[in-house]
Amino acid sequence: MNEFELIARFFTRPTREVQGVGDDCALIAAGDRQIAITSDMLLAGRHFFPDVDPAALGHKALAVNLSDLAAAGASPRCFLLALALPSADAQWLGAFRDGLFRLADEHGCELIGGDTTRTPAQGPLTLCITALGDVPAGQAHTRAGARPGDELWVSGTLGDAALALAQAGGEVRLEETALRQCRARLERPTPRVALGIALRGIASACMDVSDGLIGDAAHIASRSGVVLQIDWDAVPRSAALSLQPAERQMRCALAGGDDYELLFAAPASRHADVLAAAQVAGVTVTAIGRVLAGAPAVHVMDGSGARVGEHLRAFDHFA
Amino acid sequence: MNEFELIARFFTRPTREVQGVGDDCALIAAGDRQIAITSDMLLAGRHFFPDVDPAALGHKALAVNLSDLAAAGASPRCFLLALALPSADAQWLGAFRDGLFRLADEHGCELIGGDTTRTPAQGPLTLCITALGDVPAGQAHTRAGARPGDELWVSGTLGDAALALAQAGGEVRLEETALRQCRARLERPTPRVALGIALRGIASACMDVSDGLIGDAAHIASRSGVVLQIDWDAVPRSAALSLQPAERQMRCALAGGDDYELLFAAPASRHADVLAAAQVAGVTVTAIGRVLAGAPAVHVMDGSGARVGEHLRAFDHFA
Repeated sequence: MNEFELIARFFTRPTREVQGVGDDCALIAAGDRQIAITSDMLLAGRHFFPDVDPAALGHKALAVNLSDLAAAGASPRCFLLALALPSADAQWLGAFRDGLFRLADEHGCELIGGDTTRTPAQGPLTLCITALGDVPAGQAHTRAGARPGDELWVSGTLGDAALALAQAGGEVRLEETALRQCRARLERPTPRVALGIALRGIASACMDVSDGLIGDAAHIASRSGVVLQIDWDAVPRSAALSLQPAERQMRCALAGGDDYELLFAAPASRHADVLAAAQVAGVTVTAIGRVLAGAPAVHVMDGSGARVGEHLRAFDHFA
Repeated sequence: MNEFELIARFFTRPTREVQGVGDDCALIAAGDRQIAITSDMLLAGRHFFPDVDPAALGHKALAVNLSDLAAAGASPRCFLLALALPSADAQWLGAFRDGLFRLADEHGCELIGGDTTRTPAQGPLTLCITALGDVPAGQAHTRAGARPGDELWVSGTLGDAALALAQAGGEVRLEETALRQCRARLERPTPRVALGIALRGIASACMDVSDGLIGDAAHIASRSGVVLQIDWDAVPRSAALSLQPAERQMRCALAGGDDYELLFAAPASRHADVLAAAQVAGVTVTAIGRVLAGAPAVHVMDGSGARVGEHLRAFDHFA
């Protein structure tokens, strides 16, 4: 039973709200708008190293939630922070708070509540942020709208955070500039909020890539009832990742996780609109494939038309 | 630095929303209504025993959040569940889900999203629920509105959950019926949702009692800028608690925690309206004191007018 089977089996029921369990955000009606809501829990030793820089942790804990709001095309509005701490260390808390509020202020997203408690003995520092965003009624992106004929796009580059993790695990040894860039991607991801908003009315489906491209794309394929065909050569990679052996490039860019880029579909007729939206948002976007009719699946092909990456899977906490 | 000092020092800033950090719920405007939001994190070994009945845990994890919505006078609407599990145990999950959904269904409160992850090695099972409720604009209760001349009320009885904990710790030995009643209060608290709603337009301030009456009352005193004078003889206690030695009665009822009753103030002129609201809600309420002018403080007096309970403090996770 993986994470998604667990959610489907125990925690998925019909809802009267606009959107319930199973997407980047839930959506509830609120007057003439909708409120997008997402919640992410991060644990030391699972999602971050216990000795992480607290300012980076403050940034990332909010960033992963803002990334979900971006996927829905919502404007960040406010958030709640639940925090379980081993102790009340003022220096740590000050740095954490600064990292958190710096990103919050960039997005005008206010802390409005939460909970503070202490971990039991030996328990890991644990954070749970719930973020809320506004979106005009009917304009939120979901994973469900991709249609055959759409193009598939991704923002930024993929695989850099995974490469930084490979360095931390001793698998690779990056030169200094590459390491700095990859660690920044891992530790201080940039949620693509402006892009998500700019794609309102253009994208047919959208989600953020957090568990690896192949596994995340499978959610769009499944929710939209389509095949996603991805051209491996087109998948955008940083200079640092491009210098790595082909197998590592594929593993990092297709199944690495922690990318926090947007993966989205849009009608081919809106190609120029997508590029214009990306320019407004100041983010690069790359067409990486197309949406086909068929039983839900994700196929990655190399330049010769051969299937690649079939051994790669999304990160699964319960694997 | 206790929990509240920590929040005040690091995480409290002005907000453009209706209400931010520092009350039972945050409040945000949503059309002609407001949405009340609250988030509570529960950890095994801190908030519940690791071998807790999973159905009871499912109930309580939601109940403590619904209790915060009740304090605001909000109608429960939906919630998000973030869950960090040591493993994916289908039997445990099924029982937890049943306990959770039974209470959710009683209140028409739908699960709309969340997060599922795995604890790192030895990490405690951790839950974080964020609950949202609706309230007509301007009608939410806060801790800030108590005025000199108001009466102070509490629902139900106080101290039973603390008495069950005293039994679990070997301090007391209750007879069977009393133990069953007290354990039910500890393990399956009843959020006073109907009472919170019925008190709209009547209560001047309201909160839920979760950390002990004295400590929680101090929040109303402080936020409202008033003195709360509590008559110890009037504090409602169950038959089981009334049989205990006086010192234990006082400790359990004034500083026990886990009561999930509503503590509220209302103008003395609304005395009959409070009783009528309680009758509509099917809950007993008891006038336990009065609101006086003065520097914020909580005074508990016995029948002779002597101060009592001054050695008692609210539960503090960081003490």
